[in-house]
Amino acid sequence: MKKTLSLVSLFLSLNLLAQDDMAVKSQVADAINEIREFIAIPNDALDAADIDRNIMWLKRKFGDRGFNTAVLDTEGLPLFFAATPVSSEKPTVLIYMHFDGQSVDPSKWDQPNPYQVVLKAPKDGEYETVSFDELDDDINYDWRLFGRSTSDDKSPIVMLLNAMDLLRKDGTEIPFNIKVILDSEEEKSSKPLPAAVKQYRELLESDFLMIVDGPVHASEKPTVVYGCRGITTMTLTTYGPIKPQHSGHYGNYAPNPGFQLAQLLATMKDTEGRVTIRGYYDGISIDEKTDSILKRVPDSDKAIAEKLQFKTAEKVGGFYQEALQYPSLNIRGLGSGWIGEKARTIVPENATAELDLRLVVESDGHRLKQLVKDHIAKQGYKVLDHTPSLEERMQFDNIVTVKEGSVTDAFRTDLDNRYGDFIVNTLDQSFGEDVIQIRTMGGTVPIAPFINELKIPAFIVPVVNPDNNQHSPNENIKIGQLAYGIKAFYSILSTSID
Amino acid sequence: MKKTLSLVSLFLSLNLLAQDDMAVKSQVADAINEIREFIAIPNDALDAADIDRNIMWLKRKFGDRGFNTAVLDTEGLPLFFAATPVSSEKPTVLIYMHFDGQSVDPSKWDQPNPYQVVLKAPKDGEYETVSFDELDDDINYDWRLFGRSTSDDKSPIVMLLNAMDLLRKDGTEIPFNIKVILDSEEEKSSKPLPAAVKQYRELLESDFLMIVDGPVHASEKPTVVYGCRGITTMTLTTYGPIKPQHSGHYGNYAPNPGFQLAQLLATMKDTEGRVTIRGYYDGISIDEKTDSILKRVPDSDKAIAEKLQFKTAEKVGGFYQEALQYPSLNIRGLGSGWIGEKARTIVPENATAELDLRLVVESDGHRLKQLVKDHIAKQGYKVLDHTPSLEERMQFDNIVTVKEGSVTDAFRTDLDNRYGDFIVNTLDQSFGEDVIQIRTMGGTVPIAPFINELKIPAFIVPVVNPDNNQHSPNENIKIGQLAYGIKAFYSILSTSID
Repeated sequence: MKKTLSLVSLFLSLNLLAQDDMAVKSQVADAINEIREFIAIPNDALDAADIDRNIMWLKRKFGDRGFNTAVLDTEGLPLFFAATPVSSEKPTVLIYMHFDGQSVDPSKWDQPNPYQVVLKAPKDGEYETVSFDELDDDINYDWRLFGRSTSDDKSPIVMLLNAMDLLRKDGTEIPFNIKVILDSEEEKSSKPLPAAVKQYRELLESDFLMIVDGPVHASEKPTVVYGCRGITTMTLTTYGPIKPQHSGHYGNYAPNPGFQLAQLLATMKDTEGRVTIRGYYDGISIDEKTDSILKRVPDSDKAIAEKLQFKTAEKVGGFYQEALQYPSLNIRGLGSGWIGEKARTIVPENATAELDLRLVVESDGHRLKQLVKDHIAKQGYKVLDHTPSLEERMQFDNIVTVKEGSVTDAFRTDLDNRYGDFIVNTLDQSFGEDVIQIRTMGGTVPIAPFINELKIPAFIVPVVNPDNNQHSPNENIKIGQLAYGIKAFYSILSTSID
Repeated sequence: MKKTLSLVSLFLSLNLLAQDDMAVKSQVADAINEIREFIAIPNDALDAADIDRNIMWLKRKFGDRGFNTAVLDTEGLPLFFAATPVSSEKPTVLIYMHFDGQSVDPSKWDQPNPYQVVLKAPKDGEYETVSFDELDDDINYDWRLFGRSTSDDKSPIVMLLNAMDLLRKDGTEIPFNIKVILDSEEEKSSKPLPAAVKQYRELLESDFLMIVDGPVHASEKPTVVYGCRGITTMTLTTYGPIKPQHSGHYGNYAPNPGFQLAQLLATMKDTEGRVTIRGYYDGISIDEKTDSILKRVPDSDKAIAEKLQFKTAEKVGGFYQEALQYPSLNIRGLGSGWIGEKARTIVPENATAELDLRLVVESDGHRLKQLVKDHIAKQGYKVLDHTPSLEERMQFDNIVTVKEGSVTDAFRTDLDNRYGDFIVNTLDQSFGEDVIQIRTMGGTVPIAPFINELKIPAFIVPVVNPDNNQHSPNENIKIGQLAYGIKAFYSILSTSID
């Protein structure tokens, strides 16, 4: 998949890099100014007026770069759309990013206003504020911009705009039609997106999709992600006496809901963490080629174990990247009676387990939930979707109420894809190092239904640093990542697909 | 054990009852006045001055009845002791009661001051206040006195005092030396008692002990209790990643503490509620005679199941009274991550089960806890008594921290005991109905160590109504129970042991 560079071309490419890097650095200076301006417009999607003000800014900025723009109404907040004039000769790339951000609690930030970008330099493991004037001398790529959405996901938008500027300065002809769709509700789960795809299908028609959101691999190397897991949830509740009872009077007489729940959960996994529910892993097979791609990701299972402080990982996969190719069955919460200082000598009235199931493309969430319910029934439990009535309590010895959460699907693009190959090879050559290819990311992106609806190859091409405090106070972007992103956009948008 | 009454003696006894009842009713009137006076002295053992004021009252009241009294200093609050002049010819009965009461929150009571007794009559399932003047016409045994410690445990003390008055009026010679020990910290677990037994052993020396505390059986029939279960507790904690982790990134990779805990707990009981830990029930055997005594208790397993709304009870015993002859293993609390609206998509850092173990005389609490720990170790878990260090986390795959609570022993007096037979037969004849004999009460009384230290046969002889709201707002005693208690003391203290 990856082209081997000859020594000559490597030399040429390094030479080119040096020249490029000067131009990129100058462009980074412009980008920083634009980021400060953009971040200054609050973007909490709970406030529709904020979103409108951001769209006004985007219209102007994309217009300046020769894009045609449109505001697409949806059942929720509007989407922003921009496109270069279409030529039917060229392939079309659709770029997805979002401009809304998580809510902020300024009291938790180390700066007065999370919407006023602060420049900071690392010092002794901390960061100290630096005046923006210092950038006039030299731009230090280790310095960082702090503010809401500096990484998630406003700077990537500005990187694209500045890559366009650089392409224009260089007089480069762009061998693509570029379409850009900017989400205004990503932090609120992008609910209007799937319907919007249907409504605006022609407008969005493209050959492949690049999602520029989220951080690069922990090693900070260029990264392309081909898919991510979906998610659904289940809540299981077992029942003891109708009200908590004195454990002296009714301990070892009234049924104990905690033991029932424990016995039920214990049947769902073996002691090494593999789900034992029949059919749970059906359809998944890791062939040799996939295995070698997974193994090439520079993770250290040992380092993860040391960081999280456990001796042995669960054995669903043989190693971390392989584990992520399987659906999970995770107990995210347990509750019954009271624990700790509040513990009381009672037989509790019920016990609850909160489960989350991370999904892969082979494991439809509705199918997995049905498997879990069938498994529970096979253990002799009556499965209900409601709190049992008196009649049901007196009729069945073992009752489980199962409440089901909604399903967000997984997505995954085949690793044998010409657009994927193109992106990887281009980044490989542009940065002179192996691109990390992630087959399946463990987490869930809310836009998976959107991706699945578009039915085109999709790739996440992250550009921000992994330690960006996304969703948290003190969100930031390393200035070096601005250079990375501008250059990544530049190289992809300036290279012809073979 | 129980004497069969011939028809003639039954007739005589019923005749005697009618005469007795007039005298008892008149004595009940006196007792009500004395209860009002006694309750008016607050008795929260958190306030030592309250306890002293109660002791002053007791000194006077017991002194008036010809007792010698003493205030026994302990490592906690003082105990009150009273004794009739000792004759070496007579057997000695030691009577234990307590005069301290649970704290009150007047805002939760239906009367302004829980220490000012209110008289109430039942009406349409509620109670309405009645003037004490109404008692001048007739004393209605269905009416109730409401106030803190009316049942637990001041009225029983007043019942003894008034039984003494009645004995004196009748000129009855008492065939016992009577010793009375009144606890001032029962609601605070009677901690000073076991040491006090050692210190005042000679003073307390007796042939048998009657504990007059707690309610009669739910059927409201005369009741004698031969023992009760003890208690100890254990807290089990299993471990996942050192901090909660994103369930997308680490679900089915980082070990899940909830599954570990579930798998561990599941091995401790079968699906019918029997403990499967080897040796847990060792030493317990229910012979035919015991079985028939247990079966004679007028419980309805069906009624309990209907009240608590479950289909089938756990199968440790074949029926309720039999279940109480065994130690319990109860999950009183479970906790891991969050449940309900607070649930978060994480792999939690730990999971905790709070257990309580109700003990019987055959099952020493320290031995049972060791069995549980040995069982856990046999499942492949490293058992620690502390939160694991980094080294321990990296050394062992499965770790359980076990925190142990203190042990309060069970006690049980042999049902084949001449003092027990004497009490039962006397109550049988006095009330003309079968006395309910409870071999083991499910709950725990804090004075078990005191009882075990005394090393004499001990019997709980409860005199108050089961629906007395003990420990709760609106504690009360049915006036009929005052008659019952006075008569019970009278008959026991006036009857010679064969």
